[in-house]
Amino acid sequence: HWLINLTSIDNKPDSYYCTSVSTFSAGLSAAKLLLESGLNPVVLEARDRVGGRTYTVQNKQTKWVDLGGAYVGPTQNRIFRLAKQYGVKTYKVNEEESLVHYVKGKSYPFKGPFPPVWNPLALMDYNNLWRTMDNMGREIPNEAPWRAPHAEEWDKMTMQEFFDKVCWTSAARRFATLFVNVNVTSEPHEVSALWFLWYVKQCGGTMRIFSTTNGGQERKFVGGSSQISECMARELGDRVKLQSAVCSIDQTGDMVVVKTVSEETYKAKYVIVAIPPGLNLKIHFNPELPPLRNQLIHRVPMGSVIKCMVYYRENFWRKKGYCGSMVIEEEEAPIGLTLDDTKPDGTVPAIMGKKRICEIYARVLGSEEALHPIHYEEKNWCEEEYSGGCYTAYFPPGILTQFGKVLREPVGRLYFAGTETATEWSGYMEGAVQAGERASREVRDYQTIWQPEPESVDIPALPFVTTFWERNLPSVGGFVKFMGMSSFLTVATVVGVVAYKKGLLPRS
Amino acid sequence: HWLINLTSIDNKPDSYYCTSVSTFSAGLSAAKLLLESGLNPVVLEARDRVGGRTYTVQNKQTKWVDLGGAYVGPTQNRIFRLAKQYGVKTYKVNEEESLVHYVKGKSYPFKGPFPPVWNPLALMDYNNLWRTMDNMGREIPNEAPWRAPHAEEWDKMTMQEFFDKVCWTSAARRFATLFVNVNVTSEPHEVSALWFLWYVKQCGGTMRIFSTTNGGQERKFVGGSSQISECMARELGDRVKLQSAVCSIDQTGDMVVVKTVSEETYKAKYVIVAIPPGLNLKIHFNPELPPLRNQLIHRVPMGSVIKCMVYYRENFWRKKGYCGSMVIEEEEAPIGLTLDDTKPDGTVPAIMGKKRICEIYARVLGSEEALHPIHYEEKNWCEEEYSGGCYTAYFPPGILTQFGKVLREPVGRLYFAGTETATEWSGYMEGAVQAGERASREVRDYQTIWQPEPESVDIPALPFVTTFWERNLPSVGGFVKFMGMSSFLTVATVVGVVAYKKGLLPRS
Repeated sequence: HWLINLTSIDNKPDSYYCTSVSTFSAGLSAAKLLLESGLNPVVLEARDRVGGRTYTVQNKQTKWVDLGGAYVGPTQNRIFRLAKQYGVKTYKVNEEESLVHYVKGKSYPFKGPFPPVWNPLALMDYNNLWRTMDNMGREIPNEAPWRAPHAEEWDKMTMQEFFDKVCWTSAARRFATLFVNVNVTSEPHEVSALWFLWYVKQCGGTMRIFSTTNGGQERKFVGGSSQISECMARELGDRVKLQSAVCSIDQTGDMVVVKTVSEETYKAKYVIVAIPPGLNLKIHFNPELPPLRNQLIHRVPMGSVIKCMVYYRENFWRKKGYCGSMVIEEEEAPIGLTLDDTKPDGTVPAIMGKKRICEIYARVLGSEEALHPIHYEEKNWCEEEYSGGCYTAYFPPGILTQFGKVLREPVGRLYFAGTETATEWSGYMEGAVQAGERASREVRDYQTIWQPEPESVDIPALPFVTTFWERNLPSVGGFVKFMGMSSFLTVATVVGVVAYKKGLLPRS
Repeated sequence: HWLINLTSIDNKPDSYYCTSVSTFSAGLSAAKLLLESGLNPVVLEARDRVGGRTYTVQNKQTKWVDLGGAYVGPTQNRIFRLAKQYGVKTYKVNEEESLVHYVKGKSYPFKGPFPPVWNPLALMDYNNLWRTMDNMGREIPNEAPWRAPHAEEWDKMTMQEFFDKVCWTSAARRFATLFVNVNVTSEPHEVSALWFLWYVKQCGGTMRIFSTTNGGQERKFVGGSSQISECMARELGDRVKLQSAVCSIDQTGDMVVVKTVSEETYKAKYVIVAIPPGLNLKIHFNPELPPLRNQLIHRVPMGSVIKCMVYYRENFWRKKGYCGSMVIEEEEAPIGLTLDDTKPDGTVPAIMGKKRICEIYARVLGSEEALHPIHYEEKNWCEEEYSGGCYTAYFPPGILTQFGKVLREPVGRLYFAGTETATEWSGYMEGAVQAGERASREVRDYQTIWQPEPESVDIPALPFVTTFWERNLPSVGGFVKFMGMSSFLTVATVVGVVAYKKGLLPRS
């Protein structure tokens, strides 16, 4: 969306002009707030629809299906506020029955956010991994991760290196990889450790980001997530211009001049660019962007994901006692995590995954029925020119500390929104709303650019309580040190651990 | 440059259409070859000048100065061929007197491409580092680095990790960092090891890429490097359109339709996009690019460099027995490597560096005169919208194996050039010429798309001869293994090495 104020209704001297493409709803949120302040913004949207990286499709087979951003959960209070305003209801993703953890060719039913671990070494290792990530996260300021005390050191490391350092067991390393894949649709060796630890932290920690119940995947919107954008667009009326991809922004004159690919020209006093940082490159700027921003926008690619939904005649997994959530750990598996996508009233049984294939569902759920879907929907976000990928931009090693600080720094009369510029739930719909509203306050020079959001009355967040053991269980390294009173003993213990891992000792 | 064939002169049924922005001379090279085949190409250049990342400025103080790509050397036979054709002469960069290695606050004069090493452990370590990089390079195919036997493993690693694994001494690690900084204007923790090892390999190895004499920095062009582009542009005449940045390419009709920001429209049967991959994002494509290319172009940022030249009243360094080349190893030094930039006739004494400041020159050269330059020129390539940085695009970890193979894969009637797509001296002017000529042969469907270039008669390459000791000296690790016959001895030796490094043992 590109928002532009062509004329200012109530004779204000300034006109306001905001732009966005394909970032959930940041552009629309910005425009909505400007409109509510009595101004007259215009949204220029590159696509032929609003919603950006949310994309609800309606058809006979599915009723409706979210092929883009869909999940919401406690602490995402801004998006809940908007939903409530528009009367869009949420429902809980089914987690009544057991989840399944599929590892080494076997399925293990479990309850709770993370698969349980029985091997005591692996347990220590998992526990230490989550605890370490959350502790490091606490050192990272939401609004300026580059100011963390160890920012430089952590930014030079990839998450792969981080896992290689922290994890002693291959079980923990394998699950850690899945954790990165699922949360940021990229690989541990691609992303900066500082950035990923920040990302998890600003979502509320490892438990909040990964959980269904009480976490980021707790709910979906009845009727689909695009409704929120559509309601905002309806409010804005013909101020929203579809198929209006911006190709140049000229700030050299009195007014900012914006041109679209279809050769329309808009003029305004301010512009909010509410698109992913990498898509800023679609625009030719005059004058050129400052050096740091010019280089930043080449350095933050979007993740890669194909979202797919498989539809079945009936909800066979629930009959087998499975809720539809599968955590799939297998080297070559095309899918790491699934969730039940059956409608809240129990109709249209479906399973949501990221990437394709039914065979893996059949293997994990131990049911032939999984091989006979009756319908299939998928959306490859990698092919979208005006998204560049999904869900969000990731930072390769070294970029956040060197270029991060200009992420939302205004350039003349340009202001920057988009979920990537958020400080809470960046990468999510919630972050898009925060960013859009913040940018519109920036343009208007409000005293309080940053406004905290009161907690949703209907969907309050529960704290995650850690047990004494979760807090105090030693890491494998600590355990080994404790056990090995002398260097000889240490060596023996390490040898023992290695032998254990390699299956040379009997496992109890 | 953007090349387009508006009309085909000799009634050929096909019209040819090639595009490029700011990639040294790839677009012009492509157009030149098309013109020589009797066709009538047009070049659309975003800037108000040709030459891209080469940029020769003329003024009273400097006569002329290359603020962009400048150096050429043996094995770069294509650029020598062009230079000869246009009568542009080369001259050797001054390396008569001693080079200086500045480390830990002291200057050590030396001869040869690399500073000598006296500490025997460091010597083994340096030697092993270069040998290992060159040996690994031999496994990497120039035209398809993603097919190297260990491609996946090496691509998951940053060069930082590589150095941490290979180097035992901080001296080697420090110099290795400088080696990455100088060659690809980025940091070891930012780049994929597979990509960097490929980059060095396709330039002819560690010695060829880093050397002045017999290497990539041996020569400069008398009068500046932009002359080559200017001569090609003169040949093409009014087929070169300046200030014509392309903002959209539409392949949906019979002809490819190209529009510029200034709202001019060109039609052609084929287009050669001769710009850095990341700058493909400046163009709105219809239909959208295929998913892999759409994601690739978000993932390959350009390096960061400010090139600067400091001018002095006289050539004081030569009087002190220094040639002007400095290898500067200091944590906070803004410059890693300098070269003499005095004119071939000895006039206009100057030193070329990358980034600013004279104090460091004064310290390294031990001369007050360095503090009193009479003129200064600099060019910050990070601020250039139509370059995105310099010298070339780098690949962060994980990108080359996943996305590399579409780097120069045609998309419908679009073909891709630019020095980044070259297989010899990619990142250099030579690579730009190779890429441009290859793409123009691709468009014309020649039998031989890839043509080897005969060696320059005037500037033949000398082989780099390795000594018996360079080939057979053990690595520090190998040495330690050899020394430590038992595990106890190994431990003792390692402790000894650490103690040595930390200065606990006396150094001879």
